[in-house]
Amino acid sequence: MAETKTEAYELYYWPNIPGRGEFVRLTLEDAGASYVDVARLPEAQGGGVKGLLAMMRNESLALEPFAPPFLKTGDLVIAQTANILHFLGARLGLCPEDEPSRLRAHQLQLTIADFIGEVHDVHHPMASSLYYEDQKNEAMRRAPLFIGERIPKYLGYFERVLQRNEARGGAHFLGAKICYVDLSMFQVVAGLSYAFPRAMARFAGKIPRLLALHDEVAARPRLAAYLASPRHLSFNQQGLFRDYPELDNT
Amino acid sequence: MAETKTEAYELYYWPNIPGRGEFVRLTLEDAGASYVDVARLPEAQGGGVKGLLAMMRNESLALEPFAPPFLKTGDLVIAQTANILHFLGARLGLCPEDEPSRLRAHQLQLTIADFIGEVHDVHHPMASSLYYEDQKNEAMRRAPLFIGERIPKYLGYFERVLQRNEARGGAHFLGAKICYVDLSMFQVVAGLSYAFPRAMARFAGKIPRLLALHDEVAARPRLAAYLASPRHLSFNQQGLFRDYPELDNT
Repeated sequence: MAETKTEAYELYYWPNIPGRGEFVRLTLEDAGASYVDVARLPEAQGGGVKGLLAMMRNESLALEPFAPPFLKTGDLVIAQTANILHFLGARLGLCPEDEPSRLRAHQLQLTIADFIGEVHDVHHPMASSLYYEDQKNEAMRRAPLFIGERIPKYLGYFERVLQRNEARGGAHFLGAKICYVDLSMFQVVAGLSYAFPRAMARFAGKIPRLLALHDEVAARPRLAAYLASPRHLSFNQQGLFRDYPELDNT
Repeated sequence: MAETKTEAYELYYWPNIPGRGEFVRLTLEDAGASYVDVARLPEAQGGGVKGLLAMMRNESLALEPFAPPFLKTGDLVIAQTANILHFLGARLGLCPEDEPSRLRAHQLQLTIADFIGEVHDVHHPMASSLYYEDQKNEAMRRAPLFIGERIPKYLGYFERVLQRNEARGGAHFLGAKICYVDLSMFQVVAGLSYAFPRAMARFAGKIPRLLALHDEVAARPRLAAYLASPRHLSFNQQGLFRDYPELDNT
């Protein structure tokens, strides 16, 4: 573990999916923070799922995380994605420092958390413990309801927030400057476009600001370099966002 | 609206269910805070669902809430239950003030939020927009998975946190003193006992600390008075926790 101890931040997350860990990675990468993605190290260096679970079950922690991702920095171990970002945003200059702005950013991030929970449950409406194939019938019923009701409700809301902010000086979530919520929204738009390409193509005309924000975030120099690097994990069929064409068939 | 303006806090939530609003009410009540439950006022006084929606859609807000509950205090309007409690906990003396403690409390509250989302989805596994009766088949499949896997996983986790803290000086979530997370856990245990009485009776032997915490919270003088008052809403078949015996039949 000697290598990891030299970094300011240790991220612990499942090594084979972007998942919820990606929201933390985007913030660390955009800030140019010094971090190590612990579970992607070899087991011999304290990595792998073995290293992840060893830290999660470490009985000396002040509070055991319920699930990954969690972030270690100094003596602090912080779990819950939105909680990690609330902490990092202020430290890394990716959120205004005043309390009202921090509360607004966190409120938006928690709404994103609710949304991606629903995205996950489209392909797993019965239980996380069952394979998709064993709950496909229920997924096939849930998917058109999600596409018809929930995507418009959530993305319509986020587009409206950007529209109002635009009139106030910047089509970002907290105003003129990019904050961690904008980075997270990039991942949401990218993930939905991967999982529901047909639905998103039909809906594109209604979310011009969200699509422009996605492109703006992707072009940020540090993130463009990250997205092209081997550190970045592509979407796949084990993550939150999955490409099952039969669920994008409305 | 004159009456509401004299209170320190205005809570906005659906007037007929305990729901997520109840987690905020418990904290305000235990602290003896001066607040008004706006939507439970008559419409003529700015209340009702009409008053709730008028504030939610008020275009002059710095950030529109996605959904109730939200809390207004001074110029701040804060949405997302866990965000509201993160804000109130520090202000009302229901959370230690140091950053590591606040992060831990919030991490636990967000884990409770995930859990109650799953509780809701037991009776609404397809869509919030459909009646229970129209997704009962799917609910009947999801319920035993929830009872068999998720209740033990979440309550086992929370019991373990209390057990470790007990060895450190107090079987509460943040140590010796009651914090807002303890109040929320009271509501979770009460709600599960209402919705899944058979499952909870079987599981009782494994969660002695959670059950003792429930009783300790219920006996706190301000909360005992609140729970016996007309301000308190009982569980019912429109809320998060619903008593459908066919879903508690494993």
